Amino acid sequence: MSRSESRTRVIRVDQEGHRDSRADMVATEEPLEIRVNGRRLAVTMRTPTEDFSLAAGFLLSEGVITDGKQVSSIRYCRKDFGPGAEDGDNTVDVVLHKWVLPPFHYQERNVLMSSACGMCGRTSIDQVHQKSLFPVADDPMRLSEDFVLGMPETLRAKQKVFDRTGGLHAAGLFDGRTGELVSIREDVGRHNAVDKVLGGALLDGKLPLSNHVLMVSGRASFELTQKAAMAGIPMLASVSAPSSLAVDLAKDAGMTLAGFVRGNRFVIYSGDHRVVPATELAYP
Amino acid sequence: MSRSESRTRVIRVDQEGHRDSRADMVATEEPLEIRVNGRRLAVTMRTPTEDFSLAAGFLLSEGVITDGKQVSSIRYCRKDFGPGAEDGDNTVDVVLHKWVLPPFHYQERNVLMSSACGMCGRTSIDQVHQKSLFPVADDPMRLSEDFVLGMPETLRAKQKVFDRTGGLHAAGLFDGRTGELVSIREDVGRHNAVDKVLGGALLDGKLPLSNHVLMVSGRASFELTQKAAMAGIPMLASVSAPSSLAVDLAKDAGMTLAGFVRGNRFVIYSGDHRVVPATELAYP
Repeated sequence: MSRSESRTRVIRVDQEGHRDSRADMVATEEPLEIRVNGRRLAVTMRTPTEDFSLAAGFLLSEGVITDGKQVSSIRYCRKDFGPGAEDGDNTVDVVLHKWVLPPFHYQERNVLMSSACGMCGRTSIDQVHQKSLFPVADDPMRLSEDFVLGMPETLRAKQKVFDRTGGLHAAGLFDGRTGELVSIREDVGRHNAVDKVLGGALLDGKLPLSNHVLMVSGRASFELTQKAAMAGIPMLASVSAPSSLAVDLAKDAGMTLAGFVRGNRFVIYSGDHRVVPATELAYP
Repeated sequence: MSRSESRTRVIRVDQEGHRDSRADMVATEEPLEIRVNGRRLAVTMRTPTEDFSLAAGFLLSEGVITDGKQVSSIRYCRKDFGPGAEDGDNTVDVVLHKWVLPPFHYQERNVLMSSACGMCGRTSIDQVHQKSLFPVADDPMRLSEDFVLGMPETLRAKQKVFDRTGGLHAAGLFDGRTGELVSIREDVGRHNAVDKVLGGALLDGKLPLSNHVLMVSGRASFELTQKAAMAGIPMLASVSAPSSLAVDLAKDAGMTLAGFVRGNRFVIYSGDHRVVPATELAYP
């Protein structure tokens, strides 16, 4: 049993009132404090695996880093933490190289910007919007309908912890040229699952992720769309519905956004030029 | 069309490559800045309805207020905002009475508390855990299996915006004595849907919500369980899985936690004494 799932005793009840007491698995949820240069930036409730990738992906989303070379080190805070420790460590410190601007500068500027009441309402979307270093509008990726329709099943087949707990979101990164599922991560929070995928790619020096598709198990929110944009991903696909702001952002950024990818159909909300008949594709 | 949904043009694609361009509805997602006494506390991505309830519920969850009497006023920030305005206002200011401690005191204390590295890991759960003013362990509510099994359908039947967009979470508050669905709120964020329900009850002077059940459409996280506990609700039920920390918190607080409430069965993770055969109930 990995740290990503926990055993608990449950009682199953049916309509006739039959009760069945048994051991069951639930997805582990624990807080992770993310520090930058020793100072607390955020606490997120996450499933403990891939914490370093999660921290790196979070900093990518926040516009703090765009390359693993900007990171001097990532480590757990507890000095006595190791493979033998019964409980894991829930604090990660990301030390940036001296030439990288830490995020606290941005935070303070944001607070000052928004405290001008005359600007409120109109500037709120600007406040949450991060500009990506990696524009995707001209990304040449083209995919077939079959490719898009096949992604949910591929993702689902690899969701190991979900199989046992039913309690995890998944995010998967597909290579648009080979069709390969490059990485998949699971978490109680879908934003964390995405941060783990993107942070892992960042630390591996793989950004920008042009010619890639990010597939998520749930809905497509503004936040997830922005995370994809920050990593230079030209297409986001989700099993469920997108929000209005996810659609707006995808259109602005020139991203392809597909939703309700289920069974034998899906809906394209933005950038439909990237989905073409298989016969028009130069690669599979 | 209300502000909670937005029209967009989409392309539906099926496996044979047929394309059908049409107008479709998506759930509206916009940022809401929550201020307390004029100072920014948080920005949440939400579906614009019930913003005042959302702000009040957020402050309840954060341990800032427990009663509508502590609130002097809640208003939108834009002076020119009114029914005729094309776009709504995305900033709400909650003014507390002078005798209520604003939340910034807590925030600063938290940062100081967590910056002691020797405490990290062990204290992280304490950092996110809020103590409720309304203990629920002794709440006398008892429900039948049929009551629990009937909640998802009742909730689903009232999800108006979900029907058109497929993109909203729902939270519903049921009276455990009458079986009545007291209130239901929808939002792109499930935490917001819960905040709207609980904040509305708080502003109506209905806290603590003893003898009530909170039912959510998705999973049961630590955050949602804590929100229920802060409102004095003795039972949380969800259509999907709970997380490990949701189970831990429910046990600690003496709450009943039910998951996978679907079809003709469900799973009880904590507090099974509150679910009894219908014949043992004094009230329906």
